[in-house]
Amino acid sequence: MPPRFFVPDLDASAEVVALPAEEAAHLGRVLRLRAGADVRVFDGAGGEWRAIVADVRRDAATVRLVEPVRAAPEPSMPITLVVSVLKGDKMDEVVRDAVMMGVQAIEPIESSRTEIAAGAVARSGRTERWHRVAVASAKQCGRAVVPRIAPARPFDVWLHESAADGARLMLVEPTALADARALRDLPKPDRVSLIVGPEGGWRAEEIGLAVGAGVVPVRLGGRTLRADAVPIVALAACQALWEDA
Amino acid sequence: MPPRFFVPDLDASAEVVALPAEEAAHLGRVLRLRAGADVRVFDGAGGEWRAIVADVRRDAATVRLVEPVRAAPEPSMPITLVVSVLKGDKMDEVVRDAVMMGVQAIEPIESSRTEIAAGAVARSGRTERWHRVAVASAKQCGRAVVPRIAPARPFDVWLHESAADGARLMLVEPTALADARALRDLPKPDRVSLIVGPEGGWRAEEIGLAVGAGVVPVRLGGRTLRADAVPIVALAACQALWEDA
Repeated sequence: MPPRFFVPDLDASAEVVALPAEEAAHLGRVLRLRAGADVRVFDGAGGEWRAIVADVRRDAATVRLVEPVRAAPEPSMPITLVVSVLKGDKMDEVVRDAVMMGVQAIEPIESSRTEIAAGAVARSGRTERWHRVAVASAKQCGRAVVPRIAPARPFDVWLHESAADGARLMLVEPTALADARALRDLPKPDRVSLIVGPEGGWRAEEIGLAVGAGVVPVRLGGRTLRADAVPIVALAACQALWEDA
Repeated sequence: MPPRFFVPDLDASAEVVALPAEEAAHLGRVLRLRAGADVRVFDGAGGEWRAIVADVRRDAATVRLVEPVRAAPEPSMPITLVVSVLKGDKMDEVVRDAVMMGVQAIEPIESSRTEIAAGAVARSGRTERWHRVAVASAKQCGRAVVPRIAPARPFDVWLHESAADGARLMLVEPTALADARALRDLPKPDRVSLIVGPEGGWRAEEIGLAVGAGVVPVRLGGRTLRADAVPIVALAACQALWEDA
């Protein structure tokens, strides 16, 4: 596949399109492409085009649109990943993997064992950093959709605000709750939110609060998974069961 | 859960058991446990015991066995991960994740786009390194089984030697083969080998060779997954569909 570049708000009626500065730097300085090179551009909302590099300057590049093309297919069942903010690079990896697996949105939460508060996440610029990770992952995996990264919220706020959001499934550790369900035993939902806890696991009160709000606790086999591996395992399990591959 | 230590060939009839040097160093120098501490020991073949630290010295430690306990359950369907040797740390992560997901064995292969030859793997000591990664992952995820890591083999040799090994499924990229199957459309196998390619993907000739030998090509959704993520996604999908969670 030719190299792909993200142009948010791309005007499909334009003949020549300017790349954002970061994408232009990737095209010109990293990949060292020149005028005439065959590339793809996508708008982050599902549109993708074949294009030819028109002009490359320092920190700027334009491409000429040739024709619309089909990007990698989006899952038919929208999945939102709701994830306790993990430490440092681990959260970057979770965002990267979740985008690759086709999530529609990522909603970071602060749970009681999360080490960083929702307000501190907002001030730290991490939300913007995760957006950049999501763009890079979309470029690599062939998606023309860049999932939305919501601002971090405390878990109880999230619970309240997501009450109408379809099936809400909370991943719990194998021994956390005797009556947690296996994914396979649930009916196929129209849309699903997968809720993943922090490194130290959920507190019993958080599981109780969620279950009281209508969230379904689920488990993924009998072994203890690393917190940063739970999202990709849960996403793969949902899609294996419910997605038309 | 108390800290867990691996004692291969553990003699369950012994009252006091000596830890291997590496495990003793973990107990004494890293975790700084002292006589009287509550620990677990496991034999790598499924046996696990509650034990009390008896004596700690420089690079040596003994524990007193108290009683057998139940380790994390093993999957009922044995899965072997057959994986093209990936670069550096990525292979360590694949081994770590595969052990956490419950594989019975890991069989590294050399495919035509693998950067390191099977013979070079043997000489480099990487097989022993992967074994240490497998032990560390078993300790963390609660398994009392340490999966076997086979010596690396060329793919064609593996194909020949595994001919009687039950269902052999080859993970291929979304656009690699029009008639690749979705896992969900396959009958549940008694045992399965999942075959994962290198960073650059399989060559068409390799897919042809495998299919000719009775291997079933399968795909995992429509997006392009990173090579080092394919094993965990494929393992999660198999277990979601076929394992009693």
